[in-house]
Amino acid sequence: MNPDIIVVGAGLAGLTAARRLSAAGRTVRVLEARGRVGGRTQTIRLPKTGLSVDVGGQWVGPNQPHVMALIHELGLEVYPTHDEGQNLALLGDKIVRYRGLIPPLSPLVLADYALLSHRFEALARSIPLDAPWTAPDAADLDAQTFDTWIRKNARRPQTRALMRVYAGAVFSAAPAEMSLLHALTYTAHGGGINGHTLTRGHALQDRVLGGAGGISQRLADALEDVRLNSPVVRVEQDETGVTLHTPDGTHRAEHAVFAVPPVLLCGLPFDPPLPARRAQLQQRLPMGAVMKFMAVYERPFWREAGLSGMAISDTGPVTVAFDNSPPQGTPGVLLGFIEGAEARELMDVGEHERRDAALNSLARMFGDEALTPIETVQRDWTAEPFSGGCYGALFGPGVWTGYGEALRAPVGRIHWAGAETARVWMNYMDGAVESGERVSAEILGAQEG
Amino acid sequence: MNPDIIVVGAGLAGLTAARRLSAAGRTVRVLEARGRVGGRTQTIRLPKTGLSVDVGGQWVGPNQPHVMALIHELGLEVYPTHDEGQNLALLGDKIVRYRGLIPPLSPLVLADYALLSHRFEALARSIPLDAPWTAPDAADLDAQTFDTWIRKNARRPQTRALMRVYAGAVFSAAPAEMSLLHALTYTAHGGGINGHTLTRGHALQDRVLGGAGGISQRLADALEDVRLNSPVVRVEQDETGVTLHTPDGTHRAEHAVFAVPPVLLCGLPFDPPLPARRAQLQQRLPMGAVMKFMAVYERPFWREAGLSGMAISDTGPVTVAFDNSPPQGTPGVLLGFIEGAEARELMDVGEHERRDAALNSLARMFGDEALTPIETVQRDWTAEPFSGGCYGALFGPGVWTGYGEALRAPVGRIHWAGAETARVWMNYMDGAVESGERVSAEILGAQEG
Repeated sequence: MNPDIIVVGAGLAGLTAARRLSAAGRTVRVLEARGRVGGRTQTIRLPKTGLSVDVGGQWVGPNQPHVMALIHELGLEVYPTHDEGQNLALLGDKIVRYRGLIPPLSPLVLADYALLSHRFEALARSIPLDAPWTAPDAADLDAQTFDTWIRKNARRPQTRALMRVYAGAVFSAAPAEMSLLHALTYTAHGGGINGHTLTRGHALQDRVLGGAGGISQRLADALEDVRLNSPVVRVEQDETGVTLHTPDGTHRAEHAVFAVPPVLLCGLPFDPPLPARRAQLQQRLPMGAVMKFMAVYERPFWREAGLSGMAISDTGPVTVAFDNSPPQGTPGVLLGFIEGAEARELMDVGEHERRDAALNSLARMFGDEALTPIETVQRDWTAEPFSGGCYGALFGPGVWTGYGEALRAPVGRIHWAGAETARVWMNYMDGAVESGERVSAEILGAQEG
Repeated sequence: MNPDIIVVGAGLAGLTAARRLSAAGRTVRVLEARGRVGGRTQTIRLPKTGLSVDVGGQWVGPNQPHVMALIHELGLEVYPTHDEGQNLALLGDKIVRYRGLIPPLSPLVLADYALLSHRFEALARSIPLDAPWTAPDAADLDAQTFDTWIRKNARRPQTRALMRVYAGAVFSAAPAEMSLLHALTYTAHGGGINGHTLTRGHALQDRVLGGAGGISQRLADALEDVRLNSPVVRVEQDETGVTLHTPDGTHRAEHAVFAVPPVLLCGLPFDPPLPARRAQLQQRLPMGAVMKFMAVYERPFWREAGLSGMAISDTGPVTVAFDNSPPQGTPGVLLGFIEGAEARELMDVGEHERRDAALNSLARMFGDEALTPIETVQRDWTAEPFSGGCYGALFGPGVWTGYGEALRAPVGRIHWAGAETARVWMNYMDGAVESGERVSAEILGAQEG
């Protein structure tokens, strides 16, 4: 029996779409290339301590209504990110402790940063979240890199360094890798810089008890037809439906949803071929570069020193760190992100060398005790063939204005979901869920219309 | 019997590699996804006039030694591009006639353009052709778009317009779509702006008698094992060789060469997966956007008016035009290129609307006689699934410096050719041939080493 709808990709977007379509009475089959569900989220159990950790996406916040509602709907719980104590900033070879948003830099730098971030956020508020190509001066904003804008507007090198840390932490990229229009759009999706970077009230407020991988697992458990190890290798569409070929067979449905990173569709043969704008859009959405590194210690030793575990650095390879300990506080876990240029530096080396580099980086922040963890875990998302990188796609200069209209436009009976297509919180878990809900409504509407 | 080497892609690069490897005594199989050879070159015969025309790459010049030598080796001949008479420039709603390089703009504009192009070419001369990421200030040059540099350095709007025409004609893209480092590298590959844009002595000097598609056809005819309609869908590599899967079977060899646009490999499963830097590079090489349009007339009526048929325009959709008549001069053929932003404007419309837009554009240049051709032909390369666009890949900000090292680096027994990998004249026919010669030497060296 053919299902009504086939969803390609069992990440949060695809599984949410499948859930909503099933709830509306449609039969749905999910085809997943990997041997697991969850896409860019994954919770694994560490061998020595038995601790469950998120090697992929992990944070949610009260400003992210789609994923929060889904978490509650699934009966999962969240707990707050540990953020008590002083933060650290390692800028150059100088380390400073501080509370609040911004490190205690010189008044000239603080004033410069305040002015620049105010100007940036004011510009961001002029961008329509779901159609940045219609923004005032969209062509100009899209013809320059975020880096060019920072260089032009930041009067102090430390301000530029702070913005590079922002780009790394939030876009997993260097400011040169995206257009100014994209930096503004993405920032606006989170309601401003702080919406992306802060804990209480913002995107980093909470984590999912048991791990964020549990969301996809519960979604998949409630579905009837999820097929793992089923990469789609060819797609045909005619007037009545879509046929998807996997190495094991052929799948036919009235509609198909692709909920995968768009760039991974570049070599996939579609018959008839995709429209040129859609095909060239897919070529223009490379994925960010990020490695996630965690070190597990008997106890969170930094807390005893009055530190929150949160740190930023402009030296790397770890440029942002967090206390990622479980709710009970033991064992202690330090989480370090290696992003953009720093990730590229460590792309070609082995796991041991990367581990040493990350531990040394954490030790420069938190002291030599960081050098002797019980165990460590690392995940290089750039090396995952079915993700291609994390957190999500980067829109370089000219892409939003030249190709943005094709991002969500269905091609006949083929529909597009995935975190890249979100109308808010793109490339976040919240955006993935929003895209799954949007695409399910789109298909139900098409079937009724 | 397994061949020694399998080449994927029967364009100029792949076929040149196959020829050189065969000549060195190796057995070679070529797998081509399409039902024809030639890749981004193709010669077709028009139904009404019986004229053979190149709907893909067509020009070669004496400054392109690799393709010129190959043409002579194959016993083909070239003939000069018609360039006698006055050129046209349609800037805004003003049309001017001129001889030589640059339209007769105001002295202020001419001085501004001279200064800017001098500065640009001086900078281009500092770029190592085969390793632009090692250039002085490479990071800075790669952090901004070509558009940003033009805006900063051009004092007159007409200078900016001329540079946009240059980007369209030579890169098939808007200046915002590439980094400054890429614009410099590519310009340097042709020895400067004129190397790319002029006829006598330069890249547009000659055309191939019978059509440029004849080069690939002769190459293929001399090979023993070229298989059409054989798209590669999966790749495996082990210590002794490479296995390539096509829908019809399995092919095994000691070495494999991929001679296709890199971005089209994004979704292709490699086992083991490609190294992260190579995989992310492939995501970052989108193809340019160009449509080629030709109109055939009983005679080249513009010649009678003293015009060369060469024209540039900043209004579009045709931004560059040429006399593309056969050597005997009849029938007359006008060739118009629709590139970058202009190509995107006409991406979603049907062939009739595009034909009307192109003919109107030619009529604004050459008069109403252009509106009534005997026949027309158009080719939208952005809609070709196995090219993904033309002329070739664009390197956006951060790509050369972050990923350039992976462009030609073999991955075990897998080697990379194609116009994008050329060390000179990248994205041209000459670069394709150079890459085929380089990769064949690389494999012969590896087998001896």
